Formats: sequence, structure tokens, C-alpha cells
Amino acid sequence: MKGISFTVLSLALAASSVLAATRSGFSSSRPADSQGQFPRLGACPDPHACIFPPDVSTFIPGAYFDIRVELHAYDKDTSKPTPPAYKEFKTTIRKGNGKWYDINDYFKIKSQPKIENWDFNWVDSIDTMYAELLNNTNKPVNINVASRIWRKLRLTEPGEYEVKVQYGPKSSYSAKYLVVEPKKPKRKAKNVILFISDGTNVGMVTAARALARKHTSGKYESLLSFEDFDNLGHVITNSVDSLLTDSANSASSYATGHKSSVSALGVYADSSSSSFDDPKVELITELIRRRQPKKAIGIVSTAYGQDATPAAFTSHTRERGKAAEITDQLLHGVGNWTNAVVPDVWLAGGAEYFSGIKSLNKTNYLDSFKKAGYNVVLSKKDLLANKKKQDKLLGVFRQGNLDVWFERNLYVNNTVGNKAAPDMSGKDALGSDQPGLADMTLAALEVLKKRGGNDGFFMMSEAASVDKQLHTFDFPRAWAELIELDVTIQKTIQWLKKNGEYEDTLIISTADHAHAFDVWGSVDQRYIRTHDGQIDMRNSIGVYAQSGWPGYYDNDKDGFPDNWSPEITLAAGTNNGPGHFEAWQTTSSGPRNPTTAGAHGDYIGNPDDAAGKHGHGLPWSSNLPLGQSQGVHSMSDVFLYSNGPGSDLFKKTIENWEVYFKMAEAMDLLRPSKNE
Amino acid sequence: MKGISFTVLSLALAASSVLAATRSGFSSSRPADSQGQFPRLGACPDPHACIFPPDVSTFIPGAYFDIRVELHAYDKDTSKPTPPAYKEFKTTIRKGNGKWYDINDYFKIKSQPKIENWDFNWVDSIDTMYAELLNNTNKPVNINVASRIWRKLRLTEPGEYEVKVQYGPKSSYSAKYLVVEPKKPKRKAKNVILFISDGTNVGMVTAARALARKHTSGKYESLLSFEDFDNLGHVITNSVDSLLTDSANSASSYATGHKSSVSALGVYADSSSSSFDDPKVELITELIRRRQPKKAIGIVSTAYGQDATPAAFTSHTRERGKAAEITDQLLHGVGNWTNAVVPDVWLAGGAEYFSGIKSLNKTNYLDSFKKAGYNVVLSKKDLLANKKKQDKLLGVFRQGNLDVWFERNLYVNNTVGNKAAPDMSGKDALGSDQPGLADMTLAALEVLKKRGGNDGFFMMSEAASVDKQLHTFDFPRAWAELIELDVTIQKTIQWLKKNGEYEDTLIISTADHAHAFDVWGSVDQRYIRTHDGQIDMRNSIGVYAQSGWPGYYDNDKDGFPDNWSPEITLAAGTNNGPGHFEAWQTTSSGPRNPTTAGAHGDYIGNPDDAAGKHGHGLPWSSNLPLGQSQGVHSMSDVFLYSNGPGSDLFKKTIENWEVYFKMAEAMDLLRPSKNE
Repeated sequence: MKGISFTVLSLALAASSVLAATRSGFSSSRPADSQGQFPRLGACPDPHACIFPPDVSTFIPGAYFDIRVELHAYDKDTSKPTPPAYKEFKTTIRKGNGKWYDINDYFKIKSQPKIENWDFNWVDSIDTMYAELLNNTNKPVNINVASRIWRKLRLTEPGEYEVKVQYGPKSSYSAKYLVVEPKKPKRKAKNVILFISDGTNVGMVTAARALARKHTSGKYESLLSFEDFDNLGHVITNSVDSLLTDSANSASSYATGHKSSVSALGVYADSSSSSFDDPKVELITELIRRRQPKKAIGIVSTAYGQDATPAAFTSHTRERGKAAEITDQLLHGVGNWTNAVVPDVWLAGGAEYFSGIKSLNKTNYLDSFKKAGYNVVLSKKDLLANKKKQDKLLGVFRQGNLDVWFERNLYVNNTVGNKAAPDMSGKDALGSDQPGLADMTLAALEVLKKRGGNDGFFMMSEAASVDKQLHTFDFPRAWAELIELDVTIQKTIQWLKKNGEYEDTLIISTADHAHAFDVWGSVDQRYIRTHDGQIDMRNSIGVYAQSGWPGYYDNDKDGFPDNWSPEITLAAGTNNGPGHFEAWQTTSSGPRNPTTAGAHGDYIGNPDDAAGKHGHGLPWSSNLPLGQSQGVHSMSDVFLYSNGPGSDLFKKTIENWEVYFKMAEAMDLLRPSKNE
Repeated sequence: MKGISFTVLSLALAASSVLAATRSGFSSSRPADSQGQFPRLGACPDPHACIFPPDVSTFIPGAYFDIRVELHAYDKDTSKPTPPAYKEFKTTIRKGNGKWYDINDYFKIKSQPKIENWDFNWVDSIDTMYAELLNNTNKPVNINVASRIWRKLRLTEPGEYEVKVQYGPKSSYSAKYLVVEPKKPKRKAKNVILFISDGTNVGMVTAARALARKHTSGKYESLLSFEDFDNLGHVITNSVDSLLTDSANSASSYATGHKSSVSALGVYADSSSSSFDDPKVELITELIRRRQPKKAIGIVSTAYGQDATPAAFTSHTRERGKAAEITDQLLHGVGNWTNAVVPDVWLAGGAEYFSGIKSLNKTNYLDSFKKAGYNVVLSKKDLLANKKKQDKLLGVFRQGNLDVWFERNLYVNNTVGNKAAPDMSGKDALGSDQPGLADMTLAALEVLKKRGGNDGFFMMSEAASVDKQLHTFDFPRAWAELIELDVTIQKTIQWLKKNGEYEDTLIISTADHAHAFDVWGSVDQRYIRTHDGQIDMRNSIGVYAQSGWPGYYDNDKDGFPDNWSPEITLAAGTNNGPGHFEAWQTTSSGPRNPTTAGAHGDYIGNPDDAAGKHGHGLPWSSNLPLGQSQGVHSMSDVFLYSNGPGSDLFKKTIENWEVYFKMAEAMDLLRPSKNE
């Protein structure tokens, strides 16, 4: 975050102790709601009162959640003092059209939670957001908040509920909830494997197929592995409070059954400054631990394992960036809540939060996990050697994200000098020492089967860098990550069949959100490399009949193209980004770096971008606001392929929050267990 | 087609009597095959021999098709004379691994078809394509062709076949065919309605939902009508010989069960200059006429009715642009073939080919249709008054494409002065006098039910201008066209239920190909309109949390937004196009015209484009070859929602050519009728 963005942020920081709205999807930020781009607080349509969980929230009978009520006092005329916080408000609840109860009475809470007070700044318009750039004197609106939070509530009876906050003689606001019927599944899924291909849209699936599968007369000889699944559905990905989601609240919706706000994991975002006091909802993994305690749980990702998607299945925080605390939560959970998930298997990057100076209180978590009964592995070799063991398994293979398939397989030399060894020794984590998604997924399956036994397992396995490489327009690397998922799913199916688990396993292959990726033709690389003029470079692109077919082939049948720089490549891209240059070339020197910082905190095309150097690449105009260094997510529904018991629940178009309910139904988790 | 493109084209025209390859997808062009951007001839991988239908073609038992064999003689050294055409070649066929038969013997053809000879020019590289621009002396390769064609063949026995052409002692090429098993459907679809939303990708569905449906806390209260259908599938759209399809060969694959080449309808594209001698395959409508002659057939489109998608269901030609002949084929079909389709209902634009100077031989087809027993209507009023009639129905409502929903409903004044009256009187075809997709579809249903009776009907109904408005980046108009389809499908379902046909009707809602459309945020219109600087204009865009929600609402419950210019609109677009300007504004003065002719036949941003004027819109860089005046299609698979009997055949990912086989199976058309 540089230049003007920094200035805007500083202004807000100076005015209040809480972080102000920023346009980056990847840092702590105020959420938006249905009132344009600059709402006061996400999922909070009333002018003064907010209830979280918000209106139309849906619950599994007996699932835990917190209720937070906030009252907002403010004057939009920023020259006037902020009115004092509301002192009195009353929160009631009723079932259906029944009698209203005081919330404390209804939930048998002995002492009413005390009122909390804080203030926050509302950046209420674009003019205020860019006040310095626009040379105006607009200031954010200061808001005094009074709030109460009720922790760890449960509604066990199916039906409709209404929660109301009365904050004046004629002022009240209410939110309706639904507790679903505890359906028994037609055919129970003993195991669930949820593959998440981060940031992958339908256009990417089409492109991966064009690279990885043969065709004759334009007809494919086979489809991608997950395209053979029993059912296909679409998933609506938007947030509780905005059209566009990030990977935190989208994965969180899969993990909790609740849409949330950008950056939030397992919570609804309140307006307080703390990242850990927001109202929580129960994770599917927590529900498994309570209702099917013998079921094994695994988390696998090619990202750092505290990243949004894996963290969504073990964490509660308003801020996805709290990687040290997210690591701690794996073993210790959060206060006022159910027990920690303590996954049976956890395999990913992110070693810098397990030991060393970035680790929470400099704790050595590798030791903590060993003490907690984990077999801890730090390399591909050790992971593959682990096959026979029944211990819990922690694998941490690199600081930060794992290197991508290209650097793990084709260009290992690019990982020399990364000093990213997971033991924090300062040595390198060579690409060849890091496992791939298939290695990790199959290793996890071995342990999960042993640990889960007849109770089965739940695993989330993420192809994380499809998204990361699409953000930086490194399309060949993004395609390879998706093809790695295809190969992983192929091998997973083989493993399940060999181990007698196939018939009992619900497999899901989906994404959490889209990038606006598609292919519109082909590119003659011989030609674009040797011509500098813009019209000449453009003429290397063939569209319609002249698009022909690209020159990829997979003669060695490993599922990946054998050649990544054919003469004819794909003319492909997303529809948004900072300024950059494009020549659709595969970089051998490392992942692409298409932008560089320009004036005023803006990002411009990197003249040294190997995939499309200035003068050797077509210029792309920026269509993003100031401060965005990468392309951003898009709104399109994503695919969801599903196979096995319960897969018929996932056909057609569903919302992201429904994935949780359908997985729970398939696993027979909708019905309270006997000991509840 | 102007400037350099014209020059390139002229060069080729001068060298040969046939049209040379051009990069436009919408004019007569040489097809491409699997050998890069400049193949010799599409679907023809052998260096000298071609067989059409090509390798892995698939047939319904007893469906008609032509076989064409071409032998190509050429020298790639263009300074040398073209070798003479092959004089002798022998074509044989066998079933499975059985005995080889001379093709004439096998099909009991008394006199072998005579050899045809012609030549054509092969633009074999990008350097040749742009020889003048590049100042080189490259010339296309001239090819001498010898060919035979066998017309109106049928293979009635299911199984594998192989067709071989021997053209030298050691030179042969063969193509394998499959004739499918004549399955009886589990539950027969009496009626099939195929809705084609031209050029619509999943991102467009997501955007239309965001405009047309309400949400609470980010959860939609309802989905689009077709999203409630029984099943969802994806369709792979590529051509027989290129990644990117146009609407001709994609619709043709739905109509015939065969992928084809850009511009081709109901034929495989051969290399001869004639647009009407190419090898034909049988249309599903022709098969209906033979096997279920009492079934009624309807064609509805908001385009001119000779446009690719509607024409695919009644025509055979290598060149979609032959609108006059396509009109004639409605009644008279083509030679050497089955009878004309003669649809029971045909409703669209394209009046200029029904009478007047553009009409084939200046025939008055309006009279011809009347004589053939049609009730002919030329206005919305007359169409709506037709309800009780059982006559065949022809409706021609405008010259060219029908006006779009905006001009038919919101801005009717924009149609004043169009002089497009269907009677060719030179009067206007006012938007208010033109029916919409719902008007036409419901009027068609009334007639089709009466005419089809117990034998039911087949109807193709096309929302044509989703594609047309996406080509020109007029997103609000494109959204309205898709929402019009949503409303049409809602009304269709109501009609089917009211008329007792719902349970017997297979309804399909799909697209023929994608545009790379998606939404990546929202735009503050108040702000972008009042700020000129590029950074300021970009800052009007909100991404992630700041995308919030757009300001559309549908209080009058007609299915369409009541307001098309809210303060917060969508930041949306495709990923390719000529240079243009973008400010995401809804133009009230008529459909958007984003580009204008620049130097050298290039297209550049139109400074008078009302939706994003220069200085009041963000500049978009070109990423298309010279001569492209619009955005082009993209490769992404498209959605296919299906409902009713047979809809379970359409779940998961299928190829476009399979849609034909599945519709045929649902209608019980795979089994030969008794009189065959």
C-alpha cells in the first residue's frame, strides 16, 4: 500500500482507532452493504441498529452462533460533534408469530452481557475516500457505538425466528432467522472431499481442457476428470454486503452456511476494532467434532495454510491477515466457543507462522504440534515416507505459498535462493522438495482413512494458485495449477476405488469465486516475438476460423502438456487490471510480475515483465481504481461438480452458503447427536 | 471491410475465383483445421485427401448425409506451377472390421458421381495474409482439386464404419463414423422448446440476476426462470476446425449433430467456390418431417430470420450471408436432398429478403407464403390478433434485425426514421409495432399446439441481440435482451401449464457460444460523469467490499429493472475488442456505436460514443487483429438448463453436437419410422 492509498488510510487512522475502508480486498476493511459503494456497515440496512447474524440467516438445528447488536449514533454533518452512544436498547426474540421473550430469558442467560462502547469512522462517499487527491475537506463520519453480544447460542427447534432490537419509543429493527428441518440423508456420505480451485471460472475449465485433452475433428476424446462427475451445479458467490467476494468470505460461506464480508472468516463483521470479538458462526468442522467426533478432518492447500480458504475451515476472525493467530487457533481455537478443530491432517505452506519472529508470541508451533501427537513433516520426501503412519499429520513445506507447479516441476532453478525453508534456517525450500497438490492430497487420504475408520473423513483440498496466478495474468502458470487439480482428482478417484471408499465418498470440485478469464483466439508466437509495431503484434492474433488450435500436446500421458511454449498459444485474458503489457509468453524465469509502482500510488505496466515487455507486448489500459496492483475477482457464478452420495443435492444453481447445508445433509450432520 | 483488409482480400480474389481467408467471422471464409491458424482446409488433416463428413462423425440410424472426397494437388513453392489435379482415386467403405466395399456398390449407386475439378488459394501463413502491410511478396498457395460427391446417403445399421480414399499406391486416408443405437426414450418429450440466448455466458446470467432479482443480506429471493429448471449442463462450443465458433456452425451443431466451420449451415465446408454444393447433413427439423410428419415446427428470432441461428434449422449453405437463398429454402429447400422444412411458424425480422430488390430473383415471398397456406402478419398488432387461427403463420416485422428491447419499449422514438417497415414501403417499423420475444414465442405456441395436436411441436426461439449488443459493448441493452428471455420463459411455462402441455414438454435454455463478459465491481455514475481525469474516472469503480450493490429495482414486478440509469451501475465488460472508450452509461439515443474506422482499415474508439465519450470514458486498448470493428466471441463453455421429459440427458458437460442427439432421443427420433 503506497502513495495516495496510504495517505487516505492514514487520514482515517488519524481520526479513529479503527481501520478505515480501503479498496483493497486483502486488508482489514469496513464492509459494504446494499446501500451503494460506501455503506455505514455491511449487512446493516437500518439507519441506527444492526443485528448479526443479519436478516434471513439460516441455521442447522443446534448449531452454535453469537448474536451481536450494535446501535450507531452519528451526525452526517462532520462539523458537529458526534452524538452520544445509545444508552438503552432491548433485544427480544420470538419463534414464528409466538410470544416475544427477552433474549436473556429465552436463552436462559443469567447475567445480561454488559454494554460495550467504541467509535469508528465511516468513509461515506467517494469524495471522502479520495479527499486529499480531490483537494476537498471531506471527513469521515464519526460514529459512537453501543453494543451487546450474546455468545454461543443455539436454536434447536426448526422453524422461523425473529430477533428485534428496540432502541426508542418508535424505533426498532428486526431480523428473521430460519432453522432448517433436520433431514436424514437418502444415502449418507461417509467421506466428503471438497476440492476448491480458487478463483476459477468456467472459461478456465474450457482452457485447461484445450491444453490437456486431445480432440479429433474438434471433438474431445475425454473431458477433465471432474467433468465426469455425477452432477453439475453453479454457485452464486457474492458476499453478504457486496457483489464481489474475496476468498475469505466465500470460503467461509462454504464452511459456515453464512455469507459474510470481505476478509471475514467464521464471523459476521462488526464495527469494533478488534479482529477477534466479532459474532461467530459454527464451522462445519466444529460441527463434525461435536456430532461425529471420530470422523477425521484434513486441510490441504498449495497456499500458505493460514490463507483465506484453508483458514476458513479452522478459524474465527474478522481479518484474514491475522496469520499468527490463525495458526494458534488450529490447536487452541478461540475463547467463548466450542473446542478447537485440531485437524487430523494439515498440509500447506506458511512455515513462518509456526516458528520464528512472525509466530504468535514467538511460539514454536512445530514443537506444539509434536507434543499434541502430530507427526510433523517439512519436505516432500518426508511426506511421501509417512504413508504407513496413523498419527495426526502436520506438513509445512515452505514459508509463504508453496511454489507453483511450474517452479516445482519445470523450472526448479527459479526456487534457488528463496531462503524459504520451513525450518526457518534461512536455507532454500527448493521446488523439488515441495510436494504438489496430488502428493499432499493422497498422503492426507492415507492418514484420514486410518484415523477416521468407519466414521470416515472430511477433507478440504485447495488448488490455491489458480487464483494467485490469474491475479498477475500468468495464464500458463494458472492453467498448470488447474491441470494439477485435474490430475489430483484423477488420482484421488483411483485411490478411493483401490481403497474401497469410492462408493461412500461425496467428492466436490468447485471454486470460491471467479476471475473474468476467457479465450478469444490464438496467438502466433513466432510472429509476435519478431514484430514490434502494435498493429503487427495484434495481427499475430487469430480469431474465429483463424484461431485454429493451439500447439499443446501430452504425449507422455502425465495429464500436463509436454510443451508450454508452442508456436500457437491462446489469446486469453481477464477483463480488468492495472495497466500492463501482454504478449502471451510463458516465462521461464519465474512467475510473472506484470505491474510496477507508478506515481501517486498507481500501478503501471512493468517494462521488465518477461511475459509481455513494453515494445514486445500489447499495452493494456487500466480499469481499476488507484492502488490496485493486480487484477481483481469477478462476479460470475462458478461451477460445482459433485460425485457420489449426496451429489444430487448440488445440481442446478445454488448459493455459496447452501454448500454448507448440503454437505452437512450428505454427512448426516443436520440431526443433533444424542449427547447434545 | 475496408482498407488493408480489403487489399488482402483483393489480392486473394485476384489470384483465384474463390474467396480467400479473411479474419472476419461473419463473411465467407476458408475454414481452419487443427494445424495452427492457417490450415489448408478445415477438418482435413491429411496432406492431400479430405473426406467430409470428417473423422469421428456420428449419425442417427437412417439420417441422410452427403459424402464429399477432395484430393488436393499443390506446391508450397509458389514460384512453381501448380501440379495437375489427381486423376484417380478410389473411395471404399466398411462396417466395423468387415469387408471393404466400393462406396458406389455399398450404397447401390448406379453411376459413380463424376469428378469435379476446381482450384482455390490457400493463405498459408500470417506473412502471406498481411503481405502488403509487411511489404513482402508472399503469395497464397494455389491448389488444384479433384473431387467426387455422393448425395443423400444413409447408414441404417448401428455401429462403426470406415470410409477410405486411396489416391496412390501407398497413399490413403480414412475417416471413421459411428451410427448410434436407436434408443427409445425413457419418457418421450411430445414437445421441445429450444431457447437459444445468442452469445450468452455464465457471467451474463449472473449479471442479469443482479439486475432483475431482489436479495436480502446478499441472498437472492428468487433466481432467473430457467435456473429453476430440472437440470443444468455445460456445452462445449468449439468448431470442427477452430477454438472459436460463430453462430452459424454452433447453431448448426445443435440442428445437425455435426460440428462445422465458421459461416456454415447444415453442411461441412468444402473448398469449392459454390456456397450451395457443400456436403450436407440432415437437420433435426428435416428428420422430424420424415419421422413425425404431423409434428409442428416453429422458428422464432429477434434477429433477421435468415441470420445464422434461425437459418441453421431450415438451411443448407456454406455461407450464412446468403440470406436471399436462405429465405427461399424455407419453402423450397435445396436440390438433391429431402423436402424443405416449411416451418409451421416463422417469426422474425429480415423483410428485405421477402420482397423487393434483395429478394431472390425479386420474388415476392410474402405472396408465396400466402399461397402456401400461411397467414402472413407484419406487425405486433396483427400477430397478437392471430391467436385463434390454425393456419401456418409467417411473421416478418422489420427489415434487418428487430429493434432491441430498449428501442421497442423504452426509447421507441429512436426507431422513428428507420424506414424499415416490413412491407418495403419505406415507412418506419416503429419499435412499438414490433413484437418482443415473449409476444412471438406465445403466439407461436398457440399455432404450434393447434397444428401439432397430439404429435406436439418443436420450436427454436432465439434471443438474438444478447450477442449483437455484447459485440458492441452495449451492456445495458444486452442485459435487457437476456431479461426479456427470462420473462419469455416465465410466460412460456405459464402457457404450458395452462394448456396442459407442461409435463410433456422438454424446455432447453442455452447459448450457442460465449462472450467473455463478467462484472468486476460497481461504478459511481455521479462521479464518473463529473470527473475527466483518468485516475479520477477509475476511482469511480468500487471493487471487492466497495463494489456494494447496484441501484436497480423492479417495483412494478414486470421482470425488468424500472430504472436503467441508477447512480451505481456495474463495472463490466468483455476481455477483447478494438480500441474504444468506456464509462458504463446507458445510452438513450440508440444502441451504442463504440468504434469508428481509423487508418489502414483499423477500428478505433468512436469519440461520439454516447456510452463512453473520449475524455468522459476510460480508454480501452485494442487486442484484436486489424479490421475487427467489434468484440469477438470467446471459447468458454456455455450453460444449458433443461426441464421436463428427457432433461436428464442434458446434465453435466456435453459437446454442442450432442445436443442434437439428445433432443432427438427425447423426441423418439432415433428410431427409424415404419415407412423408411
